[in-house]
This record gives sequence, C-alpha cells and structure tokens, in this order.
Amino acid sequence: MPEADLSGPELRRRAVQAALGEMPFDLLIRGGQVVDTALGEVRPADVGLVGPLIASVHAPGLRNDAAEVIEADGGYVAPGLIDSHMHVESSMVTPAEYAAAVLPRGVTTVLWDPHELANTHGADGVDWAARAAAALPLRMRVLCPSSVPSAPGYETAGGDLDAATVAELLARPDLHGIGELMSMQALLDGSDRFTGIVGAGLRAGKPVYGHARGLSGTALQAYAAAGVHSDHELTSADDLLAKLRAGLRVELRGSHDHLLPEFVAALNDLGFVPDSLSLCTDDVFPDDLLHGGGLDDVVRRLVGYGLDPVRALVAATGNAAAHAGRPDLGAVAAGRRADLVLFRDLCAFEARLVLVDGRIVARAGRLTGRPAAAPAKLAAMPALPHYTAKDFRLDPGCDRGRVRLALIDRPRFTDWASVEAEVTGGGIDLPDGLTGMAVINRYGGDPAPRLGLLRNWGRWEGVFGTTVSHDSHNLTLFGTGEHNMAVAANALADCGGGLVVVKDGAVRECLPLPLAGLIADRPLAEVAAAFARIRAAMDEIVAWQPPYLVFKACFGASLICNAGPHLSDRGIVDTHRGIRLPSPVLEPDAPLPWAAP
Amino acid sequence: MPEADLSGPELRRRAVQAALGEMPFDLLIRGGQVVDTALGEVRPADVGLVGPLIASVHAPGLRNDAAEVIEADGGYVAPGLIDSHMHVESSMVTPAEYAAAVLPRGVTTVLWDPHELANTHGADGVDWAARAAAALPLRMRVLCPSSVPSAPGYETAGGDLDAATVAELLARPDLHGIGELMSMQALLDGSDRFTGIVGAGLRAGKPVYGHARGLSGTALQAYAAAGVHSDHELTSADDLLAKLRAGLRVELRGSHDHLLPEFVAALNDLGFVPDSLSLCTDDVFPDDLLHGGGLDDVVRRLVGYGLDPVRALVAATGNAAAHAGRPDLGAVAAGRRADLVLFRDLCAFEARLVLVDGRIVARAGRLTGRPAAAPAKLAAMPALPHYTAKDFRLDPGCDRGRVRLALIDRPRFTDWASVEAEVTGGGIDLPDGLTGMAVINRYGGDPAPRLGLLRNWGRWEGVFGTTVSHDSHNLTLFGTGEHNMAVAANALADCGGGLVVVKDGAVRECLPLPLAGLIADRPLAEVAAAFARIRAAMDEIVAWQPPYLVFKACFGASLICNAGPHLSDRGIVDTHRGIRLPSPVLEPDAPLPWAAP
Repeated sequence: MPEADLSGPELRRRAVQAALGEMPFDLLIRGGQVVDTALGEVRPADVGLVGPLIASVHAPGLRNDAAEVIEADGGYVAPGLIDSHMHVESSMVTPAEYAAAVLPRGVTTVLWDPHELANTHGADGVDWAARAAAALPLRMRVLCPSSVPSAPGYETAGGDLDAATVAELLARPDLHGIGELMSMQALLDGSDRFTGIVGAGLRAGKPVYGHARGLSGTALQAYAAAGVHSDHELTSADDLLAKLRAGLRVELRGSHDHLLPEFVAALNDLGFVPDSLSLCTDDVFPDDLLHGGGLDDVVRRLVGYGLDPVRALVAATGNAAAHAGRPDLGAVAAGRRADLVLFRDLCAFEARLVLVDGRIVARAGRLTGRPAAAPAKLAAMPALPHYTAKDFRLDPGCDRGRVRLALIDRPRFTDWASVEAEVTGGGIDLPDGLTGMAVINRYGGDPAPRLGLLRNWGRWEGVFGTTVSHDSHNLTLFGTGEHNMAVAANALADCGGGLVVVKDGAVRECLPLPLAGLIADRPLAEVAAAFARIRAAMDEIVAWQPPYLVFKACFGASLICNAGPHLSDRGIVDTHRGIRLPSPVLEPDAPLPWAAP
Repeated sequence: MPEADLSGPELRRRAVQAALGEMPFDLLIRGGQVVDTALGEVRPADVGLVGPLIASVHAPGLRNDAAEVIEADGGYVAPGLIDSHMHVESSMVTPAEYAAAVLPRGVTTVLWDPHELANTHGADGVDWAARAAAALPLRMRVLCPSSVPSAPGYETAGGDLDAATVAELLARPDLHGIGELMSMQALLDGSDRFTGIVGAGLRAGKPVYGHARGLSGTALQAYAAAGVHSDHELTSADDLLAKLRAGLRVELRGSHDHLLPEFVAALNDLGFVPDSLSLCTDDVFPDDLLHGGGLDDVVRRLVGYGLDPVRALVAATGNAAAHAGRPDLGAVAAGRRADLVLFRDLCAFEARLVLVDGRIVARAGRLTGRPAAAPAKLAAMPALPHYTAKDFRLDPGCDRGRVRLALIDRPRFTDWASVEAEVTGGGIDLPDGLTGMAVINRYGGDPAPRLGLLRNWGRWEGVFGTTVSHDSHNLTLFGTGEHNMAVAANALADCGGGLVVVKDGAVRECLPLPLAGLIADRPLAEVAAAFARIRAAMDEIVAWQPPYLVFKACFGASLICNAGPHLSDRGIVDTHRGIRLPSPVLEPDAPLPWAAP
C-alpha cells in the first residue's frame, strides 16, 4: 500500500482532539502492557489511535470511547518488528507471499536489498522489487543493490549496476539506500566503480549499508572510512564488538543460529544493547519461513538464548527505526505511526494482532486482507541448448598420458589445490573423492558449461542443479555423473530455473522458480513443501553434516567476491589474486597459477 | 564556512588508502583515549584524519606517518559537543562572537533557533541568522522559528511567520527544522496557523522541535500527537521521565541549574542515558558565556552533580547527532566527520584542541583563525517620539474618587489580582508595594506606552529598561518613577535598543544592543563587562533574591503565550482566557474580567 501521509493538518488535528478526549479514538487497545523503547521498560497503558497515528498512550482505563476497542488482556503492545536487512529472494516466494508469512507474526517493516533480482535482471529487477513492494501492507523499504556483479569481469550476471545506474536508481523516492556493499576488496583497492557507487549513496543522502565479512584492523577502518556504515556478516562475539567499536551499525542476523548464544553472552556482559545494534534475518529458506517465521524468529531465539526480551525488542524496533532513518517508527508513543503488534507474551512472541498504519492487517496469525497481486512478470530466462553428457566431460587436451587438475578445496572458505590424473582413451580418470561442478551462463552468453572439480565436498551419488547461485545466479550443477548433469541442466532450462535433484539419470525432485529463476509463483506452503522434498531428495544423493548446510554451500559456491577459487560462468576464478582459468586441466609442467611468484 | 563535502570519491579513496597504511594521514592524534559513544567506553586509541574525515581509529602507536602529529598525552578524544537547542540572541553577541566563545571550549555544533531575530525582523531575521551562520567555523544549524508571534492578536512583533512563510523558509537547504513550538495551547486548540506550521515541517521531512512547558497527561499526549517531537522545558525529574516516556526527544538544558541535581539523580537511577536524551544551553547571558562557557558548561555541571562523564558525553554528542539528524557527527569513528575535541580530563573538560571538518579551529582555549565578519546590518529600530513623565502616568478616567486597578501578581507564573486606590487631583495614589511596567511598540505601530502594575515584584528605586523582552521584544520598562521611565525609554530609543538602568532621573548604565535591539556589535568580553555593570547597577535599584533571576523575570515578563496576565504593547493580556485590557484602570463596579462567569 502507499504509506499513509502523517503530515496532514486534518489528521493531526483529529489526533490532538482524540488525545484530549474531545472526540473518540478510531481504535483503542485496552488493558495491555506497552513496551517502551525509549526507557526500555514495560508498563500498563492503553493506546488510542486516530487513522494511521498513535494519538495517545495513557493510564489504563482512562478512556473507553473509541469506534473500535481491542482488549489486550494483559498482552504486550510493541512497535512492529523491523527487519533491518534481508533478501526476499532467499525465501523463494513473491514479496506478497513473504509479506503474508511475516506480517501475521508481527514483522511490519523490512529493509529489502533485492540483490538477487538485480543480478538476474539489473535495473529492471530492482524496479520490479520496488513495484511489488509498493502494493503490500508490509512496509518493504527497498534498497538499491550495490555489487552487481560483485566482481566485474570474472562472471556474467543478468545485470550490471554501475555507479551511474546506481545514482539514477537512488534518485527514485522508493529506493531508500544502497544495499550491502559486498565488493569489499575492490572498494579497499580504490576501484572507481565501487568508490563511485558509495559516493552516489553519500551524495543522495541515503544510507550505504555494508557487508564487512572478515574485516578487522586496518581493513575494517578503511571500509568504514570509505563511507559504508553497517555490517551483518558477523563471525563471532569479538567481531560483533569490534564492528560496534568501529562505529558501524550492526544488523545482527539470525541466519547463523550457532553464533547467537555468544552474541547474547557478549550483550549481557555489556549490560545494555547499544543503539547502533538492530536485528535482521538476511536469508530464510521457505520451509524455515513457514514454520519459524521472519524477524520474530530471530527475536524469539535471542530471548531463548538469554537476552532480555525488552532489550531484544528495542534492537528490533527502536534501534532498527533509527537504522532505517524512520523516526516515525519504532515506538509506542503519541505522534508516531501506528505500526503495532500485540504479543501474547515475551517468550513465544506469538502475535495476536498486527497493525500497520493503524489498520489491523493480521489477527491470530492470519492476514485480514487478501495478498496483493504480483506485478507483471519478469523477463524469462533465455532458451538454452539441449545438453548431453559430453557437454560435461572434461577435455584432457590429449589422448593419453597425465594431466594436472586444479581443485577447489572445501566449501565456503575455499582454497586452491591440485591433483594429477591419468588420461586414457581421450578421457580423464578422475581420482576418487572429487565432486563435479558446472556453471552455465543463463543470460544469453556462451551456453557451454564451465567445469570445475571440488574436493572435500562430500560424497555424491547424483546431481543437484540450481539457478539460485550467488551472486550471478547462473545455472549451477554439483555432483557426479555427466549424464546426471545434462538431465539436471535440461530440467532447469525447461522450467525456467529452479532447484532439481537428479539421481540415476532421472529427476527425483524439482522446484520450479520461474520468476528470475529465484522465485516460485506459488503459495509459500507449497513452496515450503517442495523445498522440503528437495531437502529429502538431497539427503539421498549426498552425505553432508549438518545436512541443511549443503544448500548454503551450493548456493554460495560461486560467491566469487570472497577470497579463494570459485567456479563462475567464465571459469575458475580467484578475484583476490586476479586468476581466471578456463578449465581445471592445467599444463602438466607449468607453475601452478596460484603459487606465489 | 561551507561544510566540507564528505561524498567525494577522491576524498574517500584517500581516506581508505590512509587507513590501510598506503599513504600517511593528514593529521594524527596520538597517545589519547578515545571516548566511544557507541559502547559508552573510553579506550586508548590513535585517530588518523584525512581532510575533513576520520580515516582510522586504531591501536596506540600503530602508525606514525602523518603530515602533522598531535600528542594527546593521555587526554580524551571526544566528538565535538553538540548543543541541541539554543538562541544566540540570549548571549547578546553576534554569531561570530558566540562561535569564538564556545568553539575553543569544544562545542562544534549548535542548533540555533533564531526565535528572537524572527520576532524583531521576521523572515529577514531568519535569513540574517542563516547567512551569519554560514560564514562561521562553528557548525550552526539554523532552524525556522515556529511561534512568531507566539500569540497572534495579543501583541505586535516585528515579524509574522505564518504557515505559508514557514513552508517557504523550510524549503531552504540552510534551515534544518522547526524551532521550538511554544504556542502549545493554540496547537492543542487546533489553531489553523500552528497546525499548519507543524504540517509544513512534517511535509518537508524536517524535525519539528518542541517546547512542552508544564504539559502532562492528556495535554502532553496531544502535543506529541500533533507532530512535535522534543522538549527542553523540564520542570522536575518526574517531568523529565514523563517526557521521555511520551516518546519525546528531550534536550536537557543547563539554563536552570537548580534542576540539574535531580535530573542527574533520575538518570543515575535509570542506570543509563536514554538515546532520546541530548543536552542544550537554551539561553546563556554574556558574562556567563564568557566565564562559564556554552554546552561544555552544561556537561561540566552535570558531571559535577554526579553524572558519569562518558554518559554525559554520549548525550552531548552521539545522542545529539541523532537529534540533529546528522549521522556524520557524534562519533570518533572512521568514516565520520572529524569534528573532535581533545579534553585534558573528564572533570574540568578543558579543551586543549578543537577540530571542525578536520581543521584545527582552536588550541589551548583560543581560536586559531580570525572570527568572520558579521553579515550586513539588520534594519534599525524605527524612530520613537521623545517621552516625558506624563506618558507613563496612569489615567484614572476621573478627577477624584476611587478606582479599581488590575494587577499582575508575581513574576513568571503570573496571576490576576486587583486593588482599590484613591484618585486625588486627577492622579491615582498608588498603594505601596506595586511596581510599574510599561511596554512600547517599537515596530512602527502606536508608540504610546501601555502601562501595567506588578505586585510581589520586589522593591524598586529606579527603572530597568530593555528591548530584550520575550517574545516580541518591544521596549519594556520596570520600576518606579514616571520620569525614570521616560529617561529609560529615551535612552533606549537613542541607542537603537539595549539595556538601561536609570536611577534618580539619570542613566546609571547602558548596554546598547543595536542589532535588532538584542545583540551588541562589540566583542564578547566588552559585552560581558557591560552586562556585569548592568547587573551591579540593577542591584542598586531593586532587591531581588536571588539577584540574577531579576533578568529572567524582566526578559520574560511579556511572555504572553504562558498562562496568566502579561503586559504587551496591546495592554494586559491573558491569552489562555482571551482577555485584553487596554489599561489596568477598571470600572469600579464592573465584574472582574478574569472572574469565572
């Protein structure tokens, strides 16, 4: 929905009159306990609304005149939760489905960086996101992605947001800042492109949100000096404190649950929650979204790990409102926007009632209205050729003899490795324990698969194919069997992108994601069920501990802005060392490209 | 000075390189302890600057390469202090003199509401303020006054800022919000003018700062509901907490020192300083400014009363930066603007060095540069006629008999009273214990003095005359002796406005304030000395305990937006009851105008 205008004199005059008792409230929430984010306290108070405004927060029972009265029954009236950094695309559903999932849980605002849509569709993807967001009761603050592609020249994305394009997009009033600046190294290297993109944000007076993974010491100072002002890529409690001390706003994220207990311990040691700390989800898989929720789940887990619930709410509301530059949000106080949630308790955080702009948008876990229609479709994926097994066969460059093969060692924090192999009859006898990987450009470029070899990537008995493949989201395949690879690639091409599990030459499960190859056009419940079936099928083709991390590993395997080797549609690249190999087959006697000179 | 632009790619690139150690800093502050406003802690760290930017805050001794090195010698490196609400005019010196006084003490930013200049010169006064501010090294954020006049129809000011004018002024990029909305009652009554003025601020997306004196309960809720978001008119610790709970940003002010101990006790009970609390001076007399300082003095006194010094600095810097909507200020952190102060300790808060935009503007208590020239003069006060004693003689309306006289009882929180008096020979035999008051329109309107009678206003033996007379700043006289009144009025007319003390028909002291009748065109030291002489002369003509409060009483005696009777240039008015009496002489038998019907 368009945001309600709070500046109108008539609205304000009515709010004043209602606060003074000269006219009834439009809506009165009676008998609740207000979560006060200014003083970090909870106190019994009633809340009177006029239109989209909170008109009065007053002593219990003082007033009973209202067009509609809601009995809070001792529940907690809090500001609506604000997710300070997230990507709708990670949940593989439309913005409308995402909104329908989180609004009934009390999340009323999200800062959406449509980074994936920008990678698949460039400025058109950002425009689609902004238009989709505008139609929803969830307050989606769309940002302009900053790092598309994250390492220009080393991969092909569907979009290319250079500084001029970013500046043009930022002039739009419906784009509210620059999304996570992932291209850390390029920025620290003084890259014109990324220095210019940060400058565009600073000139526009819009926040430049960050991604400072692994940065510390002088690099962290340099990153902040560049003009980036936040981070959510925390790796430890020490990292959390170092980022806060560096003056960054921290979006503490829920997607890495194993870190939350140490974050809570660090905050409890501090004895307060710094006002530069907000909370975010970052990425939530569809079944986790359906069953766990969005930012409400982050709050719930933090409190479960021992964080004081009011402190958690202050971070998730008042602090996040400041982070978003929205003084009208984040407080249950007269004059503010009536984005409110009524929680039954401060433990399960079950939302009984949710209001946005003073309108009841959800009750008892269900939306009161119908989800908005999705905006016009995004351009479909260009057609790909029909693949066969031989497209995925490594060319040894000789008929017989030995070759040396470059390997990508370990998921996530990758390293270079190599191995020797025999060539017999024109084919390479691959040593045991290697996993195949292929990346196919899906944006109309050269459709020949680029091949790579992974080590310490589990034991595979089939192929997982995905067009969710950060950051460029080219069609990416993992596993064993050249025929399996071809079947998976063809299946994804047929359904316009998605996720597929292939075993023994047959598709076991497929989740089509026809919107940009990232997003399904079905209800969340169906997508979540399909994703759960993909998980189960995945368990049949690869042993991975813990199992759920296999998706993070696969979806992030081509994240080439990180250090180390990664396979992209242009070959095996190492952006930090400036390496690009068209194939893993190396000249047998040449020095290893990644060896120090 | 124009603010340094922090968005330029070349500047940011240089800052990154310096942070990384690839080039030297422009300036390095070494061996100090950094006041960290994010975590509320102090830690040893060095600070490297590049141009107007902080490029790095790093471990002590890590770097020594800089064009200029400053040895902090264990001193405290804090963000420059930010005065979140003040009126330069109260110090009776030019903005340049004000800046020269507070910059060397570590105040680098002030939010200036030129309310008095707007009352004397309307939009021209606001323009003058903005132009004067632009020339200074002190970061003066000028606001657009909201309440000029504060009670239209009950007095004549030199300006009239209606909603359309305010909206026009707010479109200027050098006006940063709406100054204290004093006309509380009119706003609560739904006045078109003030509702429209608040709406202009909300529509412009600029803050609407408040003045919520004495508001509590439903009136306070209504005031916040109207869209005003701050207050500095605190009357007690309970009032402080109530305002914070109402969601208002509080500018805790130093001008009412007697309240500070209870504020400190309340904050210490809370155990933290809410991020919605900043500090301000509001009004500082010239000799207090010279000897005590500006916001530094508020910090010093709060700490003296027991507030933790780091908490005081967080309120005065980080919180105030948020209050001003300036995320580039308020932190000693890479990427922020290098407005810094080096304090010798956190007790006396003596500033050794002050930087604005990375430039050293003061050292050891002295400005390093010359104060800027004042902008063009303001239009002078129109000529007034020559007054004689009879202009100040009450007309009884009869030759002989009894009259009833309306009295204004008590300073500040005034009340109506009345007394009977004899008329003999065409003159009124005034009872003992009354003080005369007169107000003369000085904006070209009817120059006949309006007369009033004050009770419980001390014993006077002369006249104090002033053109500093909130809010309209008409020429105002207090004391006894009709001839003294005339002498004082003529003296002020001769010098274009100012302060004057007259005894026995002769001027004892005069402080000319030719700029708008509010501001001297001389250096602060001279103005402070002259004001001290006025204080001493005042002690000779009136016994008042404590003596210094006589000025607050006189300067505020015509503050007609407050409840109760006040004398303005239109007579004795009570804006809350809608009363205007042309003279204190009442019909003997008519009901008292202020009596309940």
